[in-house]
Amino acid sequence: MHIAALEKVKKIVPDMKGAKGVYKQIPISKEDGTPTFSFRVFTIEPGGHTPLHNHPFEHLNYVIEGNGSVMAENREYEVKKGDFIMVLPDEVHQYRNTSTDAPLVIICAVPKEYE
Amino acid sequence: MHIAALEKVKKIVPDMKGAKGVYKQIPISKEDGTPTFSFRVFTIEPGGHTPLHNHPFEHLNYVIEGNGSVMAENREYEVKKGDFIMVLPDEVHQYRNTSTDAPLVIICAVPKEYE
Repeated sequence: MHIAALEKVKKIVPDMKGAKGVYKQIPISKEDGTPTFSFRVFTIEPGGHTPLHNHPFEHLNYVIEGNGSVMAENREYEVKKGDFIMVLPDEVHQYRNTSTDAPLVIICAVPKEYE
Repeated sequence: MHIAALEKVKKIVPDMKGAKGVYKQIPISKEDGTPTFSFRVFTIEPGGHTPLHNHPFEHLNYVIEGNGSVMAENREYEVKKGDFIMVLPDEVHQYRNTSTDAPLVIICAVPKEYE
């Protein structure tokens, strides 16, 4: 059993080349003893974005709040609060906050080997 | 790439013995090609609860909205919007909506073998 209130989880600026205005929290990870998957939360400021990149593992995402877009495999999809997104392994992808005044906050779950 | 808006995902009454006032949605599962993990969403009505049970896999939970409690290993913990909870394999657990007027809505992620 492990409980973490998001507002109490340390927020850091991740070392991600190509990211702009992105903050990271890690409420559930291998350090907490997760058997398989870790949960991170990214907060993206208005105009900010994650890197346009790919990697050999999937993302399972949920939009906690805000509006933005996800680029995947050369297509751009609008995303909003309440959306679930699965980015498959090796898909080139990028999240963007397309609003001018509100953060985009997303859960980003990955296999524990990566967090 | 797979996107599912929660409000458009079919809501069913799950076949869970011991559950009361519980509805289930499955925005990401093996049917969508998830490599490792599936995301379900449970909506628990005021006064409702999931079964008091255990199983050989973990739950990774996020409280989308509402207030309630989670019983785990004979202790009861209050949970609220914004909380992340990890229930480890084999822990006896139960979610309860302790409010009188608002739903408790939680993400419940499990290994894809189970959903």
